[in-house]
Amino acid sequence: MAPITNGRVLFAAIPTGYPVLGQDLVYDTAQTIDLESAPLGGGVLVKTLDLSVDPYMRQRMRPAEVPSYFPAFPLGEPIVSAGIAVVLRSEHAGFKAGDHVEGFLPHQQYTIIAEPEKVPLIPLHVIDNPHGLKWSAFLGVLGIPGHTAYFAWKAYSQAKKGQTVFVTTGAGALVIQLAKLDGCKVIGSAGSDEKVQFMKDIGADVAFNYKTEDTREVLQREGPVDIYWDNVGGDTFDAVLENAARNARIIACGMISAYNEPRGVPIYKMHLVFAKCITIVGFLVIDHYSAESLAAFVKDVHAGVASGALKHQEELFDGLERAGEGLLAVLRGTNKGKAVIHVAENQRD
Amino acid sequence: MAPITNGRVLFAAIPTGYPVLGQDLVYDTAQTIDLESAPLGGGVLVKTLDLSVDPYMRQRMRPAEVPSYFPAFPLGEPIVSAGIAVVLRSEHAGFKAGDHVEGFLPHQQYTIIAEPEKVPLIPLHVIDNPHGLKWSAFLGVLGIPGHTAYFAWKAYSQAKKGQTVFVTTGAGALVIQLAKLDGCKVIGSAGSDEKVQFMKDIGADVAFNYKTEDTREVLQREGPVDIYWDNVGGDTFDAVLENAARNARIIACGMISAYNEPRGVPIYKMHLVFAKCITIVGFLVIDHYSAESLAAFVKDVHAGVASGALKHQEELFDGLERAGEGLLAVLRGTNKGKAVIHVAENQRD
Repeated sequence: MAPITNGRVLFAAIPTGYPVLGQDLVYDTAQTIDLESAPLGGGVLVKTLDLSVDPYMRQRMRPAEVPSYFPAFPLGEPIVSAGIAVVLRSEHAGFKAGDHVEGFLPHQQYTIIAEPEKVPLIPLHVIDNPHGLKWSAFLGVLGIPGHTAYFAWKAYSQAKKGQTVFVTTGAGALVIQLAKLDGCKVIGSAGSDEKVQFMKDIGADVAFNYKTEDTREVLQREGPVDIYWDNVGGDTFDAVLENAARNARIIACGMISAYNEPRGVPIYKMHLVFAKCITIVGFLVIDHYSAESLAAFVKDVHAGVASGALKHQEELFDGLERAGEGLLAVLRGTNKGKAVIHVAENQRD
Repeated sequence: MAPITNGRVLFAAIPTGYPVLGQDLVYDTAQTIDLESAPLGGGVLVKTLDLSVDPYMRQRMRPAEVPSYFPAFPLGEPIVSAGIAVVLRSEHAGFKAGDHVEGFLPHQQYTIIAEPEKVPLIPLHVIDNPHGLKWSAFLGVLGIPGHTAYFAWKAYSQAKKGQTVFVTTGAGALVIQLAKLDGCKVIGSAGSDEKVQFMKDIGADVAFNYKTEDTREVLQREGPVDIYWDNVGGDTFDAVLENAARNARIIACGMISAYNEPRGVPIYKMHLVFAKCITIVGFLVIDHYSAESLAAFVKDVHAGVASGALKHQEELFDGLERAGEGLLAVLRGTNKGKAVIHVAENQRD
């Protein structure tokens, strides 16, 4: 079989604000690969099926010398994210052709991974899919976003029946449903009427479009807020501090508004943390993986998704060449549900 | 006995920044009182000995309709704070002439308190002083500031031996000493060389004057910071976020920099809370009073002060007419140790 094109999404230049497609992120088709004969070095050859795009990836598009919790992407190389693939060939005892695997993958169509167990952050592993759920869901409600919501809600919310929870962005679908299961009143905000409708469909008591309704007014009317699930930071964070109940808890799960601002986005009302006895908890999901936490997740969330009791939403961007578009969508908040780059159908070649 | 002057410090107008003496705070000598015949209504007549002045009092000098954790001071009335007094006369079974009492007291020389048990925030109570310590100390290391440091350090620091603690402002003397007792490395900052020297004297490993040395540089050199005891907020808070260790804890104990800024002082680096898994805990000391916590405090702190093992520092402002001056000093950070308005000597009349 002749070598075929191996499309890749390269980190070509460091953006100053939002990444510019074709300049900072470039879809490149110069590389080829012979799927039958390319040497594996004792590892595996995988075909990428689905790739995640998430706001935190913007943080990795920085100069290598600036430290942060994740290393910078190397310039000239493909960007990397959580992904799902199918094994085409294997020289590794842990994998066989046809296995579906998850791990941090470069944004390219085909990848040879010499040491699958040494893939950083999420080592390559065969996916356990007892309910036969859709592979792309393993990047959303069944993947890191789902783990993030589930682990942190269980660890930090200390939710009590009747408390008021405020969740920003539609990505919080699982958080909304977990909060409802705990008997809370849920206020959700998102940037489109479509997302607002989805939040209502999954049980949010109050859902509003922050582009057409004032967050402060809604929180003043529907609050005070006992638990805030923060994905946004900035002025929304201030609005919550102003409308927080005494002893409120803020779960800091990412601050999208800060990713594109070199200096950071100001928060003015931090003194209310003291005045209202507020606790703010920042966390990274990678600290929460354990056999116990994953077993609880499969029991609660896989089963819930399979039965339809837990709802989720995803937006597929078809084709690897649309990865940059998908990333911009999540950075701008224009995506409808979990954004996934759908690279190929579930076939071995 | 003829009526005598009862000097008072009145909240005369709402300041926009720092209070202006003679305009926002006025020392008034128009009122008189007959110490022998003034009716007590079943309560007590006390002579004020010492009054506390603290940064939070600025928050109470606001329009009554603006909500906050403490009610606004009523205009035209004396300001109120924690104070020490001696009972001159009593019609109340819980008090007798000569008792030394603590409670929230108006800033005036003599006060009739009809219902001592209903004094808000700190009901009037007889002080237990087994070690015969100086009365003014009950407004500092043995009073609310000491309780604040001790209760919150025990409840929230989770200090481990070898961790690095950063404490702002000299008021943190007890915090510095508790952190040293827990085996931590302590970095302290203050606004005068005198305070810096005092911090070194009580055991701070690194002490610097933030007016002449850059906080970021010191923290970069001596950090990262595992525990930050925040009294300041603003840019110092950002400097700590930038130089925080992963899983750092910030104990938010007041943000002096915000008190005189109507909009609040911006913090730009809150997204690091998420990236570094930082926890921020705001608290109010009034939530921490219990028989157990007070017993532990007397055992550890009273005894330590009596033996000289725990050091503290106070600056007495002699005379009630200097109350405004003392309050400005704590708002500007120019006080040397705990600022106390020393109203009268410990004599019954």
